Amino acid sequence: MLAASLERRRPWCEARLRSPDAQSATPRERIQYVFRRAAENAAAPGCCGCPYLAVLVELKDGEHPASVVARAAKELLRGCFEEQAGQGGAGDPALLARQLVLIFDGASARAGARIEHLDDGLLTATATTLLDAAGVK
Amino acid sequence: MLAASLERRRPWCEARLRSPDAQSATPRERIQYVFRRAAENAAAPGCCGCPYLAVLVELKDGEHPASVVARAAKELLRGCFEEQAGQGGAGDPALLARQLVLIFDGASARAGARIEHLDDGLLTATATTLLDAAGVK
Repeated sequence: MLAASLERRRPWCEARLRSPDAQSATPRERIQYVFRRAAENAAAPGCCGCPYLAVLVELKDGEHPASVVARAAKELLRGCFEEQAGQGGAGDPALLARQLVLIFDGASARAGARIEHLDDGLLTATATTLLDAAGVK
Repeated sequence: MLAASLERRRPWCEARLRSPDAQSATPRERIQYVFRRAAENAAAPGCCGCPYLAVLVELKDGEHPASVVARAAKELLRGCFEEQAGQGGAGDPALLARQLVLIFDGASARAGARIEHLDDGLLTATATTLLDAAGVK
C-alpha cells in the first residue's frame, strides 16, 4: 500500500522536474528550476520533506516494495540532473549530478524535520555554487 | 530511552568534529577532516547514516525528547562549521555552515539508505567546492 501510494505520487514529482519554459530554458536554468520548486514545496504547510527519501531512511530495507519505488524516483532525479549537466557542458556530469542530489536530499531531510528553512534561497544558491564550479551554462 | 541512547553517543560524535592535529590544522583542513571522517563512518559495515538525522526524519515530532537531543547535536555540527568558516575568512560563515550541513545530512541520508557510496571522495570534494567558493583558507 505504501509502495502504491508512492507510485501514485510519481507523476506529480516528475512534473516538478520539468521547467515550464523547457524549450527556451538553458540546462542551468532547468536545474535551478528543480531546486526553486523543491524550496517552495518545503515551505508548504504540513510538508515533511521528500516522501521517497523518508521511506528509504525509515524502512532501511532495500528489498521492500516501497523502497524499490523510492529508489527509482531518486534515480530519476539524479539521471535528470546528469542529463542537464551534460547538456550544459559540465566537466563531469555524473559527479555534478551526485552532488546536486546530496544537497536536494539534505535540504529535504532538514527542512522536513524543521531544522532548516529554505525560503531565503539557500538551496538554489548552493546548487548555483556547484553549477558555477562545474561550468554549467 | 531513545533520547538517552542518543545522548550517550554524543561524546563519540563530538570527538569526530576535532581534527587530531587541531593546533596546526587550518580551518579549511578542520572542516575537511569532519567530512573525511563522515565518509569513513558511512563505509563501516551496518552503518545506517547519522542516527540524529534518522530520529528527526522518523519521529517528525520536534517535542519528543529524542528529537531535542538530535536537534542539539545537529546544531553543534552547524555551529562548529560556522566557527571554522569564520576563522577561515568566509564571506558569510553562517551561510556556508548551512550549506555544509546540507551536504553532510544529504550524504548521511543517502549513504545510510544505500543509494549512494562515499568511498570515492564525493563528500570531501563537494565540501571543498563550497569552501573554495566561500574563500575559506
